[in-house]
Amino acid sequence: MKTIDFWYSIGSTYSYLTVMRLNDYEQQSGVTFNWCPFDVRAVMIEQKNIPFANKPEKSAYMWRDIERRAAKYGLPVTLPAPYPLQELVLANQVALLGHREGWGKTYTIESYRQWFVDGLPAGSEPNLSQALSRAGQQPQRVLEIARSAEIEEALVQQTIECRDLGVFGAPAFVVDGEVFWGDDRLDDAVSWRKYGVVR
Amino acid sequence: MKTIDFWYSIGSTYSYLTVMRLNDYEQQSGVTFNWCPFDVRAVMIEQKNIPFANKPEKSAYMWRDIERRAAKYGLPVTLPAPYPLQELVLANQVALLGHREGWGKTYTIESYRQWFVDGLPAGSEPNLSQALSRAGQQPQRVLEIARSAEIEEALVQQTIECRDLGVFGAPAFVVDGEVFWGDDRLDDAVSWRKYGVVR
Repeated sequence: MKTIDFWYSIGSTYSYLTVMRLNDYEQQSGVTFNWCPFDVRAVMIEQKNIPFANKPEKSAYMWRDIERRAAKYGLPVTLPAPYPLQELVLANQVALLGHREGWGKTYTIESYRQWFVDGLPAGSEPNLSQALSRAGQQPQRVLEIARSAEIEEALVQQTIECRDLGVFGAPAFVVDGEVFWGDDRLDDAVSWRKYGVVR
Repeated sequence: MKTIDFWYSIGSTYSYLTVMRLNDYEQQSGVTFNWCPFDVRAVMIEQKNIPFANKPEKSAYMWRDIERRAAKYGLPVTLPAPYPLQELVLANQVALLGHREGWGKTYTIESYRQWFVDGLPAGSEPNLSQALSRAGQQPQRVLEIARSAEIEEALVQQTIECRDLGVFGAPAFVVDGEVFWGDDRLDDAVSWRKYGVVR
């Protein structure tokens, strides 16, 4: 099976475009994606990579670009979405647990949908409990485990792992050690997976 | 005639990908591009937008991404190219003069080719005189005019103009007030020009 590691972080705005179209894209491309949440904020702070804070021109462009591209993909958006997220770490701890237990994709997609369409910040209530319920999970059980030292440490380790692979932002796709950064590099990553070159 | 303003700055690395393929692209797309040099460094310093300095991980990615995309476009590259440029302002003053006199495209393409293939920094010798010679110009004459107060001021004004349009980086494409940033948004800009939407 041809697979690509899809590194994302709930809290990353451009990841919305990938999260919401990846299931359809996967079927069309014939490539399987392995969803890997990480703490993008930790990596970016460590690398002094602060692309939007105190940059109003670039931030305004980001929302407009996302709006145009969402329309291209047929995705609904209500912009600007609440940003930055207050509970980025918890949102991704839940996602990590979800992928272990098999409901991570649905939770992630529902978190983003509420964040980008309904204006409810991911990782906070009521987004968190609603996304979990829609993924068939009991919020209280999940939150207790997601906040445990084990899951906290697992997210830290997963974050170190992707940083060491060269991932510095989200979303990113990793194929045989090649890093492709940005929703707009999804086609490049798939081309690399299939042909070993960007076509 | 359907036109798009192509804002670029000799000194911008990703502009290489656009500069070198735009003539062919223009013929295929049926859209005409109006080449507009500006001083991207002035805009980025003003907006505290410093994407690569002291960011080794992001810089390493940039070169690899450019390498893969250059291969996709069939463009030669010898990477990393000398960066950052010492004479960014002069390089663009010459380009501005060149577009007034009709040889700006050839000069820009030759500057980039020497910078990205031969390893000779744009805006400095021998790149500058060689690019001018290949554009059919006498370097001494051009450099005297390019360094004049009039051209210096014209570049400052052109830089303010594009900043006020919302351009914060290079390359950028502007279509009816819509800004598209990055070589990877060229198709989006053309789609907007033709259909008023990103397809």
